[in-house]
Amino acid sequence: MTIHSNSTLVPDVLPGLAHRTLAGAEHGLEHLAIWSQSIAPQGATPPHFHDCEEAIIVQHGEGTLVFAGEQRQFRAGDTIIVPPSVHHQLINTGDGPLVLVAALSTANVVVKLPDGTPLDLPWK
Amino acid sequence: MTIHSNSTLVPDVLPGLAHRTLAGAEHGLEHLAIWSQSIAPQGATPPHFHDCEEAIIVQHGEGTLVFAGEQRQFRAGDTIIVPPSVHHQLINTGDGPLVLVAALSTANVVVKLPDGTPLDLPWK
Repeated sequence: MTIHSNSTLVPDVLPGLAHRTLAGAEHGLEHLAIWSQSIAPQGATPPHFHDCEEAIIVQHGEGTLVFAGEQRQFRAGDTIIVPPSVHHQLINTGDGPLVLVAALSTANVVVKLPDGTPLDLPWK
Repeated sequence: MTIHSNSTLVPDVLPGLAHRTLAGAEHGLEHLAIWSQSIAPQGATPPHFHDCEEAIIVQHGEGTLVFAGEQRQFRAGDTIIVPPSVHHQLINTGDGPLVLVAALSTANVVVKLPDGTPLDLPWK
């Protein structure tokens, strides 16, 4: 059992997207990861998918969730449930940062672009 | 894929402990749950364990983590990693509420007391 703080900030992983791994393989986990991400105004994740389950807590800001040709609005206080293998994208439509905490059901998350190409993420 | 807000607050699940299930089986998940909990000053979880992995984000407040006869302090900004089957207890040692977000590596979490008795939790 461990307690840690000050997880490494990875700024501009993708344009306007900063990332911290709060929990994951580097902490000895196998079946769980927690990512903290901040997306700048007008920034977005790429459209992507992964084979694990995901739940995203929206801590600050607001945005649009795009999936299966649909668009849905979300805001701070909402929780987004992402089943395995569903393609999705989150877009910051607010004036301030969009701050998210994402929990994933594996510590070794392989994020794939819509064509199946794995993204070479700069964190593990 | 769903977006929800206003998860049901379960106040005083245990004395001084309020609970919300932000993500879990009721949202179609199998391998992931997220619980939001607030523990009043001087309140505590019972000593307990579970067979899944857990990572706890400390959002507000401070406390003591008790496990394997040890005590360690934690505070807002820390992340606590709990391996499967390790007995642990969190105690609020601050003057305000201790607010936690716990992610667990199954949606069907069985919380057990140190003697192995399952707790009959009022949420699923």
